[in-house]
Parts: sequence; structure tokens; C-alpha cells
Amino acid sequence: MVSKSASKEEYAGLKHPKSDFSKWFNEVIAKAELADLRYNAKGFLVHRPWSVTAMKAMYTLYEMELEKKGHLPVWFPAVIPEENFRKEGEHVKGFVPEVFWVTEHGAGERLTERLALRPTSETAMYRMYSLWIRSWRDLPLKLYQPCQVWRYETKSTRPFIRGREFHWIEAHDAFETRKEAENQVREDMEMTENVMQRQFGIPFIFFRRPVWDKFAGAEDTFAADTIMPDGKILQQPSTHLLGQNFSKPFRIKFKDKGGKEKTVWQTCYGPCIWRILASVIAQHGDDKGLIFPFSIAPVQVVITPIGNSDSVKRKCGEIHSRLCRSCIRALVDDSDKTPGWKFNQWEMKGVPLRLEVGPKEVQSGKYTLARRDTGKKQLVPESKLVDTCKTSGEEITWSLIKSADAFFKKNIREAKDISSLSYALKKGGLVKMDFCSIDRKGEPCADIIKDKLHADVRGIRADKKEKPKGKCAVCGKKAGCVVYVGKEY
Amino acid sequence: MVSKSASKEEYAGLKHPKSDFSKWFNEVIAKAELADLRYNAKGFLVHRPWSVTAMKAMYTLYEMELEKKGHLPVWFPAVIPEENFRKEGEHVKGFVPEVFWVTEHGAGERLTERLALRPTSETAMYRMYSLWIRSWRDLPLKLYQPCQVWRYETKSTRPFIRGREFHWIEAHDAFETRKEAENQVREDMEMTENVMQRQFGIPFIFFRRPVWDKFAGAEDTFAADTIMPDGKILQQPSTHLLGQNFSKPFRIKFKDKGGKEKTVWQTCYGPCIWRILASVIAQHGDDKGLIFPFSIAPVQVVITPIGNSDSVKRKCGEIHSRLCRSCIRALVDDSDKTPGWKFNQWEMKGVPLRLEVGPKEVQSGKYTLARRDTGKKQLVPESKLVDTCKTSGEEITWSLIKSADAFFKKNIREAKDISSLSYALKKGGLVKMDFCSIDRKGEPCADIIKDKLHADVRGIRADKKEKPKGKCAVCGKKAGCVVYVGKEY
Repeated sequence: MVSKSASKEEYAGLKHPKSDFSKWFNEVIAKAELADLRYNAKGFLVHRPWSVTAMKAMYTLYEMELEKKGHLPVWFPAVIPEENFRKEGEHVKGFVPEVFWVTEHGAGERLTERLALRPTSETAMYRMYSLWIRSWRDLPLKLYQPCQVWRYETKSTRPFIRGREFHWIEAHDAFETRKEAENQVREDMEMTENVMQRQFGIPFIFFRRPVWDKFAGAEDTFAADTIMPDGKILQQPSTHLLGQNFSKPFRIKFKDKGGKEKTVWQTCYGPCIWRILASVIAQHGDDKGLIFPFSIAPVQVVITPIGNSDSVKRKCGEIHSRLCRSCIRALVDDSDKTPGWKFNQWEMKGVPLRLEVGPKEVQSGKYTLARRDTGKKQLVPESKLVDTCKTSGEEITWSLIKSADAFFKKNIREAKDISSLSYALKKGGLVKMDFCSIDRKGEPCADIIKDKLHADVRGIRADKKEKPKGKCAVCGKKAGCVVYVGKEY
Repeated sequence: MVSKSASKEEYAGLKHPKSDFSKWFNEVIAKAELADLRYNAKGFLVHRPWSVTAMKAMYTLYEMELEKKGHLPVWFPAVIPEENFRKEGEHVKGFVPEVFWVTEHGAGERLTERLALRPTSETAMYRMYSLWIRSWRDLPLKLYQPCQVWRYETKSTRPFIRGREFHWIEAHDAFETRKEAENQVREDMEMTENVMQRQFGIPFIFFRRPVWDKFAGAEDTFAADTIMPDGKILQQPSTHLLGQNFSKPFRIKFKDKGGKEKTVWQTCYGPCIWRILASVIAQHGDDKGLIFPFSIAPVQVVITPIGNSDSVKRKCGEIHSRLCRSCIRALVDDSDKTPGWKFNQWEMKGVPLRLEVGPKEVQSGKYTLARRDTGKKQLVPESKLVDTCKTSGEEITWSLIKSADAFFKKNIREAKDISSLSYALKKGGLVKMDFCSIDRKGEPCADIIKDKLHADVRGIRADKKEKPKGKCAVCGKKAGCVVYVGKEY
């Protein structure tokens, strides 16, 4: 993965510090060769090897978790007949404006029926669920698919945050009872914690969304909000209690143990690997560039030869093979750049560990291992390289998790009224406050926040109960709940 | 992956023997739950967990081989602006009739430019190549993407063989010289051998295709032909020497070491995982159902408890954990079916190894391990289970490779004239014969074969030189080459 194209000039780092977040984000995506925005279809991204390799690792870890929880993989067609698409009224209203339609083939012949490029797969999958589910023995049915979806976004697109095509996973589960479906919603939140938080280092709070902000067709939507370095809120995985809103129009019925015909209860869950990568880039990076958690780094250890001697080259090769055999993604950078240039380049690309192999190291049998996050170096004897790389890798991940957590906690503030809310929102992050209601009757208050402060009511916490102490920060009536407010991407 | 829906009746095996191939193939796809053909968009397949898990393993092995040979992964958009699509004249002619066009969004608003759903990605990728490649230092550029492609097939579709959507890998490489591109074509054939033949057990011959059967836009096409159980020919991976046919219209230029501007030489290679699975199903299966090579089996070892005692259950769990820890895909079938029913079911689904765990086994500490391919059983002490499963797994793969090879060789026949060709074609497989030419001047003879015998000239062998001894089997003129003829799917 060594780009050989840069010329021999001095290494040019990033122009923008991370504090100038929006520019830094775009610059690091281009310079670290994560993606190219010059594709000539608006809103569509070309993903380069550096991001694809990371996302492949992220997919693998997420899919392992889903399978551990009893999900199996499926691949559904990318196109959905219009007829299916129109079965659930709310869903149609919510998604039709965003749909790309396939209407022609060949020299311009019209298809007999328009096909939607899937914006999400409920209406593709649930027609099949009604064929597959016959009896309680077929339940629960827990399936996931890793795939792309397409949405005609009219808001301005941003790489890995909002685009007309993105890469995600969608899990669609069906149960005998409402209770089981509710438990699944909790399990979905737990999986998010196990993977996004504990492995990718992205902290979040799951909110039960206000009724006016639910997934089109859901009874209830729970979504994980993260805080970006500029203080804006980015929605990450969401899980939806669909109830019987889809199973009724799609007639997904089963015979229970007593032989009685019933309708299934459903949930769906959508972790978007593409967007989680945005959080990984944003959360963990620094002024020098990216920092990848060890488990998802495209290259985990870069081996940089110092000097050009045969013994150094040979040793680099040996160490490379040894690391690879132990399932560490290692790379020897044998390009003709200076060691200093290489150090900078791989730091910018976020490789967690750098191993320096020079004549001195070869002679002593001890190698310098440098950490990307702290810059700390240690001398490691050859026999301990594999173990030390793995331990240091874990330490880096832990340390990234810790700093991300600290940033997240620091950016939750409180407000009592519109003016303290306005003040807190200027600092960014989430603002906690008493609020009248996340049902329809709270919508006018949310509209005021939206109009005056360009911020959204994200909902009430799903992970714990919080009781309001006083009055709604907007209308001053007795508060019915505690909500969090933030400015969304 | 235990389907709990079947009722308690006697196990019903396949109705059709493999000798009734077409029916057997469809039946095994349905009964082994590989795919469902009832999706309501014509020519689109729903892939169920059993096939997806196998294809995921197949993708991983193929991608490892590509990366070993210096390829890196990319993800390009699924849509290609019409403008790109029309840059290479032959390509347009070849592919436009098959393209699905995205033309509308939302409530029916027209897009400013039609977007092709990619039928293949040359015209998506090469525009970016012209931005990425500047100097000889950027070469070779070897990228691959695992993805779906869409083609408006008018021929009748068959699951895993021909469809309007299929899952493949495409690799697109660019070089400084024609020589290097030619070497890449050879490397592509070598990769096919390393993976499709040695790991998936599918034998083939790579043919240089006649000029009238080249990939649209290629200088030369080399394609691997396999023989299906009914004697028909199925084309598997093909690799194309594109020369400069695309790099010229797409202006993919580089400065060579001397600073001179040159145009790159290109190749592309397309192993279709989806279709290779068709060969795996067809080639290795038998009257009882599927047989998977060990490395790609969705479940490698099924553990079937005999009886219902706690000690049996506990032991099944212990063995399951032990196998999983050693990276063996194992499953305990604890459904309420009889052991006999389970044996039949997992044999039908092609699981390579079955481990029987009953009270007798628990007491003696020795377990019965049965092979799917031969039916042979052996008693294995608990301490040797992991090793024996792995060795037996490899033996099964080897034995599948051997039988497939034997079938392939047996089905290559020879012919001297149209009547012996006709006779040989009735037996199926490939027929070797002297032929005038695979250039344009041979086309009239190929047309005669097509019209009279409904068979195709597949080309001349790419792996070895064969000299014609006599006259063209069709026109009787002096033969210029040795070709192989067969009836295609």
C-alpha cells in the first residue's frame, strides 16, 4: 500500500489543524487517500484501498457480533418493485422522495414496472418473510445483510457522513411476541456498545426519538448520537420497533403452539459502517492526521528500514513474515523516501505502530517500536515483537477509547431555559434539559428550538430513566421528560 | 442454522437424481435453502444464509489470492454516468443493450443525466485512473472490487448461472508496457488455478476466445470453460488484454523514467463468485444433495446429539466450543428431529463432516466422525478431534478435486469432421478438432457449427500450444489451429 507517486520533496503535512475541523476532515480524507470526491456523479464517493481495508475489518467485526447474537447473513436484490415499496403508507411517505428509480433498459426501452434502488430493504425482505414464516418454529427469524443503499439526498453531501450511496448493514428480525421484539431493541443497543464503543472507540448515547423524528413506518425509534469534534451531533446506528406496522400489510403470519394464526412483531437495526468510519476519522485523529484503533487499522504495523543494507532488508522481510503469520497486518515501506518522510506519511495515515529497523537494531537484536497516539518509543527484542505489537495495539485502542469518552462527557451540558440552552449550544455537544413531551404535544416547543437555535430535540435516554425536576425549558409548563438537544450534521 | 420449520414427518430426500441434472439443480437450490426464486422482480435472486455463508468464504479466499498478487481493494459507485459509458465504442455496442438505466428520483423527477447501473466497471474506474496515474511511479496499478453487477438479460435466467444481478469480483490493472499486461493475463490464469481449481475443486481449460467472441472493448479475451454434469459448457473467470483500447479514450497517461508521456496498457479480470458457486453445486453434489469442499462449507462439522441426556448435551457444547476455538465452523443440531432425519438433512445440505455424540461415545471418549463424500465413519478420541476434522476436511477436498478432474478429462473428445463432431457433442463436454482460424476468416465455419449443431467454438488453448495435423473439420481447408467446441449454457 505504498504510494509511489509522491515526489522527493520535503514531507508536507496537513495544512489544517484539527481545530479547523471541517477543513481538516476533508483534507485528511484526500491526503490519507481514503476516498476521492472527483467521481462525476454528484454525491457518489470513490473509496480507495485505505478506507476499504479499514471498512472490511469493521464489517467483519460487526458481522461477528451479529452472528454471535443469532443473526444469519442474506443478500437481497438491490432493486425493489414499486408495488412492494408502496405497501406501508408511512414508509412510502418517508422514503419515496429519496428514491432513485430504475425505469429503462438498453437503448431506452421502458421497464414494465419501475424498480426502486433500495434506500433500505424492509419492503424487499418482508414479502419474502411472509413466504418463509409459517409456524412458531420459524421464529425468531434474525437476518442481516451487508450492502449499499441509495438515497437521492438533496442536502449537501459529505464524505462518509451523507451521500447518495452508502455502505451499511441492516438487520431485520421477526418474533412471536411484542416483548421479544422489545428485547431485540435492547440487544441491538448492546451490540452497538460491544462493537462501536468497545472496539471502534466511539462513545454515544441511545435516545428514544421524539414521535416527529421516527423512522418512517416504525412505532418507536432508538438512535445512537455521537458528538463530532466541532460539537455537532452525528447519528450513528438506530434500531426500530416496527411492531406490526409492516407485518400486517405484508401478511407475515405464523401458527402459534396452539395452532392459532398470529402476526409477527418486528424490529430492524441499521449500523452504517460508512458513517461509523466518519466518527473513527473524526474522533481519533489529531493535527498530524488519522489514528486507527488497532483492530481496524488497514496496516497495523509499518516496518521502516533505516538505510539500505542487505542485512536491514533481510531483517525487514523476516520480521514482516513473522508478524503476518501471527495475523498482524504489517507492511514494509521500502520506497525510496527518507525515513523521516515515511514516519510522517504513516503517521498521517494513522498506522498505530511503527517499527524501525536499522543497522544498529539488526546488530543489537532490539527494535524501536513507536506508538502513533503518544509518540512513545520502546526497544523490543526480536523474540517479543509479536506479543509487544499486540499488547501495544490494545493499549492504543484503550487509550483512544478513554480520550473519546472524556471528550464526550465534557460535551454534555445542562440548560434551564432557552437562553441557557442557546449559550450551551454555542459550546457544542448535547444539552440536557427538562422538556414538556416527546409526543406530538411537545412538537411546538421543538419547533421553537429548531427555528430560533437551529437545533434538534434528540429524545430521551434509552439507557436510563431520568426524571424531570422542573419546567419545560421552552414553554415553562410542567416538564414530562428530560431531553437532550444538539445541532445535527 | 437449523431450520426449525420442517414438521416431524419422515425425511423426504431429493426427488430427482443428479442424472436428471436440470431438475436436480433447481431442487437442491430450493431444498438446501441456497436461494429463493420467488422474488417479484424477474431475474433477481434472493440469497439465503446457506449460500451467502459459502460465498463469503469464497470471496475471502479469492481476495486473499488477489492481494497476495499485489491487488488492493476499492469500492466504486454502483452507477456510471452515461457520458463515461459512451467513451469506448465497442464497449458501448456490447453493453448498452444490457444496461439498466436509473432515470428518475422521488415522485418521478427526471435526473439531469441517465445513470447506468454498472454492468461492469471499466468506464467507472478508468476515468479515476486517469486522475490517479501521473508517473511510472504510480504503476503498476492493480485494484479489485468485490461487488454486484446488473445486466438486463433477455435469455432465460437460472440461479447462480445467469441473472439480472450477480455477485463477482473485478480486477483492473494498468501497466507501463504491453509485455507487463500480457504477463498479468497469465497471472490471472494462475490465480484462477490457485483458487478455483485447487481450493474449490473446479477444473477448467483457459481458451483464447475467437475474435467474434471477445469482451466488448478487449484486444484479446481468455476465458476458463468448465463442463457441467449435463455436458454443457459453463464459462467461468475471464481475463482480458485491453491493450490501449480504454486508456486512449480515457487518457490514462504517465511520464516514463525518461520524462516522456506514454499511455498505459491495461487488463481486467472477472471471477464471478456467484457463478463459481453454480459449478461447486453442480460438480461436487450427488443424488443425496450438495457436497461442499471443506474450506467453503457454511458449516464444516455438524455435531448431532444421539439421545437427550444432560451429559450428551454438555459434551456437544464442549466439543462445539473446542472446534470453534480452532476456527472450524461447527454447529450443534439440537432440534427435535430424529438423528436419522438430521443425518439426511445435513447430508443434503453438503456439510463435509458429521460428528455423532451419544451416551456410548461420551462414556468411551471416542466419537463417530462420518464423511459426507464417502460415507465412511471412524472413531476419534476427543483429544484428536480438532486435528482429525482438519485432516479429514482436507481429504474430502482432495477427493472432490480428483473426481471432478476425472469427469472433466473423460469429457474431452475429438472430432475430425462435422459428423464426428455432431456425434461427440451428443455425449457432451468439449470436443477438440482442427479448425481453419479463430480470426474473422474462421467465422463462417463457426456459424455452420452454430446453425447445424447449436454449439460454439470456444477458442484455442491458452495453457499450451497445440498444432493442427490436418484439415478444418468444417470447411476442409488446411487447418490453422486446434479448437474446442461445446454447447454453452
